[in-house]
Amino acid sequence: MDTNSFVLRGDICYSLSPTVFALYPHGLAVCIGGRSAGVYDANELPERYAAFPVVDYGCQLIVPGLNDIHVHAPQYGFRGMAMDLELLDWLNAYTFPEEKKYLDLSYADRGYTIFAEDLQHSFTTRAIIFATMHVPATELLMDKLEATGLKTYVGKVNMDRNSPDYLSETDAAASLSATREWLSDVKAKHYANTSPILTPRFTPTCSDELLQGLGEIKAQFNLPVQSHLSENPSEIDWVRDLCPWADCYGRTYEHFNLLGEQTIMAHCNYSTDEEIEILKKTGTYVAHCPQSNAFLASGIAPMRRYMQKGLNVGLGTDVAGGASINMFRAVSDAVACSKLRWRCVDQSLAPLTIQEAFYLATLGGGSFFGKVGSLAKGYEFDALVLDDSGIRSPRELTVAQRLERFCYLSNEGGKLTAKYVAGKKIQL
Amino acid sequence: MDTNSFVLRGDICYSLSPTVFALYPHGLAVCIGGRSAGVYDANELPERYAAFPVVDYGCQLIVPGLNDIHVHAPQYGFRGMAMDLELLDWLNAYTFPEEKKYLDLSYADRGYTIFAEDLQHSFTTRAIIFATMHVPATELLMDKLEATGLKTYVGKVNMDRNSPDYLSETDAAASLSATREWLSDVKAKHYANTSPILTPRFTPTCSDELLQGLGEIKAQFNLPVQSHLSENPSEIDWVRDLCPWADCYGRTYEHFNLLGEQTIMAHCNYSTDEEIEILKKTGTYVAHCPQSNAFLASGIAPMRRYMQKGLNVGLGTDVAGGASINMFRAVSDAVACSKLRWRCVDQSLAPLTIQEAFYLATLGGGSFFGKVGSLAKGYEFDALVLDDSGIRSPRELTVAQRLERFCYLSNEGGKLTAKYVAGKKIQL
Repeated sequence: MDTNSFVLRGDICYSLSPTVFALYPHGLAVCIGGRSAGVYDANELPERYAAFPVVDYGCQLIVPGLNDIHVHAPQYGFRGMAMDLELLDWLNAYTFPEEKKYLDLSYADRGYTIFAEDLQHSFTTRAIIFATMHVPATELLMDKLEATGLKTYVGKVNMDRNSPDYLSETDAAASLSATREWLSDVKAKHYANTSPILTPRFTPTCSDELLQGLGEIKAQFNLPVQSHLSENPSEIDWVRDLCPWADCYGRTYEHFNLLGEQTIMAHCNYSTDEEIEILKKTGTYVAHCPQSNAFLASGIAPMRRYMQKGLNVGLGTDVAGGASINMFRAVSDAVACSKLRWRCVDQSLAPLTIQEAFYLATLGGGSFFGKVGSLAKGYEFDALVLDDSGIRSPRELTVAQRLERFCYLSNEGGKLTAKYVAGKKIQL
Repeated sequence: MDTNSFVLRGDICYSLSPTVFALYPHGLAVCIGGRSAGVYDANELPERYAAFPVVDYGCQLIVPGLNDIHVHAPQYGFRGMAMDLELLDWLNAYTFPEEKKYLDLSYADRGYTIFAEDLQHSFTTRAIIFATMHVPATELLMDKLEATGLKTYVGKVNMDRNSPDYLSETDAAASLSATREWLSDVKAKHYANTSPILTPRFTPTCSDELLQGLGEIKAQFNLPVQSHLSENPSEIDWVRDLCPWADCYGRTYEHFNLLGEQTIMAHCNYSTDEEIEILKKTGTYVAHCPQSNAFLASGIAPMRRYMQKGLNVGLGTDVAGGASINMFRAVSDAVACSKLRWRCVDQSLAPLTIQEAFYLATLGGGSFFGKVGSLAKGYEFDALVLDDSGIRSPRELTVAQRLERFCYLSNEGGKLTAKYVAGKKIQL
């Protein structure tokens, strides 16, 4: 038995499917060497685990860690500000000038220290993160994230056109060369928790030559990919002008072999039938970012449709389009926005339930990382211990009710008591 | 100089209009006898205030208190739960069974203690509150609210039809008689902070006879009124069936003289031209409750239109249709929902800015209480002192940026340091 083997006691809840919770009041979750060995009712712990140390969290909730599959680290410094423009103007007016600052490593150090510390203390156990185009700052971010103990993918951003001079790589060759340099540096660092992910910003800022080169690097090193897709109507119109050869925005990535089961496309608010078919065929993940899509007036993704089609789907905070890195907020926002979409746009698509939104944040996005997002036997042991005693009520509540309530009120009386990632306890 | 006269030092911000902030970095706010005597730059404090005690809050933000003009105290116990139904089904399945419990004073004591304590510690300085139909529990709630020092209106609910037997008054006469009894009791209590407000639940649960009787009580005692209006399409259809004589839902209240400058109608998501005209003509307040309207899939009120028409408008949390009593959350939800409405429903109505939403929460709803909602000279001195040092950023921020950010992130690093209502410091 290694030090990574133990038992947690508490009120345990995780998703068996998008609609069904497994519930173990006063249950026992067993971790062996970083993976779950199953969850048991109080009196049913198998004899073989009887000698494991037990951490007793009383009647606190124990749930799987939450996976934020789309977030921009350098934008964290202006979260909750500059919310008055749509996507393309917002990028030019606020985002690009801020990301430019990450050329300066001392600014990057200040900004990324805050981001990494706040992410460490958040409900997020795993995250998929955009950095900037700057290699040194991206490596600095990866160093800081490695130290948190969270599992992360981090991308040096590629952008070689339609960007201001101060935030654009000279040409595709320069961007690809910087990417290879970055990948080589990262390989030498032998991170345990942090991995690189190819990150073309989005088609408008990436030439065909750049996308083609990234597709080749992806194939050569078997790397994952992240980008943006069909977020905003003006953006989609622009891509149509830029790539008249493509029948849909998604095709501009698919054409260069950038899609697949290790690719995440953020947003997909307006995916056409063709695009959905491409996402389905390639197994590409959709990162639904409801808060950002509201604050940038982008719209509301038809998540019910994507779930019906069997797409791979998860949730992202998309800071700083979204203001909060709280993934429980993303869960409740997903529910709220799906209800407004049902009411205002399309009553053929039922709103998401809280169970479905919680599933998206755990198993949905978690599957991108492997066997992640559940406390069931065989999954990597990512767990949150949640104190909801500050959310007071005169009622007696079930464990399922308490989890539902925590999704809505995590930041209004809820507290994170402990966080485990792959069996390791994170310093809070 | 009485004990209620002092100076607060800090980074001061309040609304001059829906679009303009008054900003006083390192400013001085003077309170004399519960009212503002003006806000001054650091070196410009008039000599006559030089001897006042100064409370130095350093570089914390000082802003007007927030006014929650629509919230249901007895629903607080199931906030963040039972979010899977639309309004009418939600009332029958969850709300009415919970409100029934307030017949039991010991349950009411537990529930209302939590509500009053949490409201006291919230960003709310003044609130307009629904209780239940039960007179003793409503008086208990008023006792508890009186002790908080917050300024509140509280309503014993009237409902004599279309409600379950366990939560319905026998008939209009019984409801009116209970109301008079309640008003008489309240008068004898001589509250300093807490006032009664007539509270017909909504037209579907109030017979014409009851509404008529309440209109008479309103006139007799010159009382304010609160109710619900045009929240949900099914509710509106139902009112059309119930009141075929009325050309719009709003008419069902106007007909019985229940509207006016001391009346609040919650929601108004679907007000017709006729209804808007009635609201305008009577000076009736609209309580916009964006979070509730999302979670109950009710829709999104056209606030831009109401502001263009010059209606009286403010913000409410509508707990437990809304999950959170945090009025800063209501501010940011108003912005987010207005953007989704612009995108999904009607691009002729521009989204609300953060300045406009903050105005709604301060001066907008505050004006219902008199000269309330500003720190300008002559206003009742309601102030919040806000510590935003936990919302970290590598950037230098202006006071306006910090307030904007606080609206989005009040519960993600923000803290309430102090709260003043009419010049009195509230115990936190």
